[in-house]
Amino acid sequence: MKILVLNCGSSSIKYQLMDVIDGTSNLLAKGLLDRIGLENGILNHQATGQEKIKCTVDIPDHQTGINIMLTRLKDPVGGVIKSEQEIKAVGHRVAHGGENFKESVLINEEVKKDIERCGELAPLHNPAHVKGIHSIDNILPHVPQVAVFDTSFHQTMPEYAYLYAIPYSLYEKYKIRRYGFHGTSHKYVAQKACESLGKKMEDQKIITCHLGNGASIAAIKNGKSVDTSMGFTPIEGLMMGTRCGDLDIGAVLYLAEKEDLSIKHTNDLFNKKSGILGVSGISSDMRDVEIEAYENGNHKAALALDMYAYRVKKYVGAYAAAMGGLDMIIFTGGIGENDFSTRKKSMTGLEFLGIEIDDEINHNLKGMEAIISKPNSKITVMVYPTNEELVIAMDTYNIVKKM
Amino acid sequence: MKILVLNCGSSSIKYQLMDVIDGTSNLLAKGLLDRIGLENGILNHQATGQEKIKCTVDIPDHQTGINIMLTRLKDPVGGVIKSEQEIKAVGHRVAHGGENFKESVLINEEVKKDIERCGELAPLHNPAHVKGIHSIDNILPHVPQVAVFDTSFHQTMPEYAYLYAIPYSLYEKYKIRRYGFHGTSHKYVAQKACESLGKKMEDQKIITCHLGNGASIAAIKNGKSVDTSMGFTPIEGLMMGTRCGDLDIGAVLYLAEKEDLSIKHTNDLFNKKSGILGVSGISSDMRDVEIEAYENGNHKAALALDMYAYRVKKYVGAYAAAMGGLDMIIFTGGIGENDFSTRKKSMTGLEFLGIEIDDEINHNLKGMEAIISKPNSKITVMVYPTNEELVIAMDTYNIVKKM
Repeated sequence: MKILVLNCGSSSIKYQLMDVIDGTSNLLAKGLLDRIGLENGILNHQATGQEKIKCTVDIPDHQTGINIMLTRLKDPVGGVIKSEQEIKAVGHRVAHGGENFKESVLINEEVKKDIERCGELAPLHNPAHVKGIHSIDNILPHVPQVAVFDTSFHQTMPEYAYLYAIPYSLYEKYKIRRYGFHGTSHKYVAQKACESLGKKMEDQKIITCHLGNGASIAAIKNGKSVDTSMGFTPIEGLMMGTRCGDLDIGAVLYLAEKEDLSIKHTNDLFNKKSGILGVSGISSDMRDVEIEAYENGNHKAALALDMYAYRVKKYVGAYAAAMGGLDMIIFTGGIGENDFSTRKKSMTGLEFLGIEIDDEINHNLKGMEAIISKPNSKITVMVYPTNEELVIAMDTYNIVKKM
Repeated sequence: MKILVLNCGSSSIKYQLMDVIDGTSNLLAKGLLDRIGLENGILNHQATGQEKIKCTVDIPDHQTGINIMLTRLKDPVGGVIKSEQEIKAVGHRVAHGGENFKESVLINEEVKKDIERCGELAPLHNPAHVKGIHSIDNILPHVPQVAVFDTSFHQTMPEYAYLYAIPYSLYEKYKIRRYGFHGTSHKYVAQKACESLGKKMEDQKIITCHLGNGASIAAIKNGKSVDTSMGFTPIEGLMMGTRCGDLDIGAVLYLAEKEDLSIKHTNDLFNKKSGILGVSGISSDMRDVEIEAYENGNHKAALALDMYAYRVKKYVGAYAAAMGGLDMIIFTGGIGENDFSTRKKSMTGLEFLGIEIDDEINHNLKGMEAIISKPNSKITVMVYPTNEELVIAMDTYNIVKKM
């Protein structure tokens, strides 16, 4: 079954076309439409095994973008399908499912309305997803669409973990609570790591560290997410590329008063100018900061790395406590998969929990699945590359197959 | 040496007169002057072994208040000193010492200016302390005064623990960082518990849980505070009577926009209407909430208790990870000393760390020093009543004695 996976942002669409046959999937093509609605729109496209294509093209809206992509997919030269009729389902990544969506769902009129309603909580993301869904309605009217939510895996958190200690009425009125994000990634790597180790996820206490430009960490007990570091918004928790993560709200109010900051400016400051970039003053990219720290002895760069690893370490301790123990830790995401140094720093000092890293294996591992703990380590520490698109394709396949 | 201990607030003065002889101290009298500068000022006074006195008295300013207290202390009937000449030193509790004060100090002109400067960071507290110091200057001009800071014990935190992941320039410009509070209490109970157990504090990894109406938790490694849950302000960290503790700053900005809140209103909401009060909707007092939860089956009351204990538990895990292990946990403060149920709930599930609570001892313990873990528990869990005034008196004694 050929499935198109879409991640529609406000001015971009990421896509993958996959062929799913039972449990396995083949990537046929992938790409990115960027600068939708702006001048000089860009298409990046790559069919598997072929050259990358990059071209400038006018993309006034999402629907036009999807048509451009389809034209490329069925191009007689280098295309991967003959007709769009071959696409049997479309799976959408949806950033926010609020409390309504505890799992992936077939999209109908009611689901569309609910996704729009959740846009209140994700104003930059959900409206764009809805645009993508409507575009497919118009272009491929008979193709079933599925929504896969970043939040749904975390809907199993207990009330005492997802509520904040603010007036309960604010939860009732505005639904202010912890939602968590990166749910597809946390779920995927936990499942795959368990499969790979021959363990039942239902018996395990797992901590998944999704460390990318955005970063979050989740506690997964007996197959269910019981806590996660991102909260009402994706700013809470770990230190990230440009986001501050955990921060005393008193400091925010103090600063807003001192600098007479607007809400928009405050949001920008802590979402776009903080984190690794803010502390190091160099870059939001861990690789740049590591070069400055390790090769040029830059103090603030080294400090940013220390802070980053320290926060991961504290969350590992906190979530082990939350679950009453720990069996596995899994690293994923750009940093988690590729940066041996962050993995090593964040695990150092956790020997008392039964964590022993094999430095040689860890040091040489980049972007591949592997166990990085020693054979006698009580807790298994693993790297597992994430693949959110694959989860979306598989969820879509499983839902559409039942129709 | 008779030492007067003062805790001057903006409209109140708490005081204790102690007689310190070498390592021991006797409380001679204690009291509270309240509603300073308001109508119907109140004096609560009790000389040790005598009846409590409560009377209404006009207290236009701090200096008048201190004079009223001195008159009471040397009252021919029920007084404890013959003349104020007997007072050989005054120790002040000072809320904020910023980065300047890493320990208690003898107050001179420069120290006074520094305390005033730190008032920028504690506008409700430091200016009142300075008023108290000036009043003593006027009334007892030759008596040495000592400042004991809530923040100084935490000044040993490493940079990666005290900095937030915000632009470094904001730390440089505004000194926005984690300071931590309740330092005298954390230090005192850690020291006393070590003495009581015959352990050297320098060898221990200790977590101190100061759970009162305000609440904070500290990680003390080899005698030094290495992390603590209160941050730039006392709002961060654990859930408290009326404070929210940790909260996604994105939620604050969302709410401020939705409700068009001023900074003052936002501060009030999260400082005065949140925490146990906000979630339960009943009271900021744990005892009221426990009655509602356990006797009347109130869901939100039970939820508030679950949230409270869950946060303590997560910090214990986080700080054990931060220190690379754990030897002792100490509970103190009104809730920590008296509430067996919070102690029990927060320790449940931590057996994997080597914590085993003796339920019978814990259940029956209120306001007294005792070990509440089982003899074979790898980690010793203790209750130790705090006594911040005693720390202030002893620090004052030790500094003045050397003069």
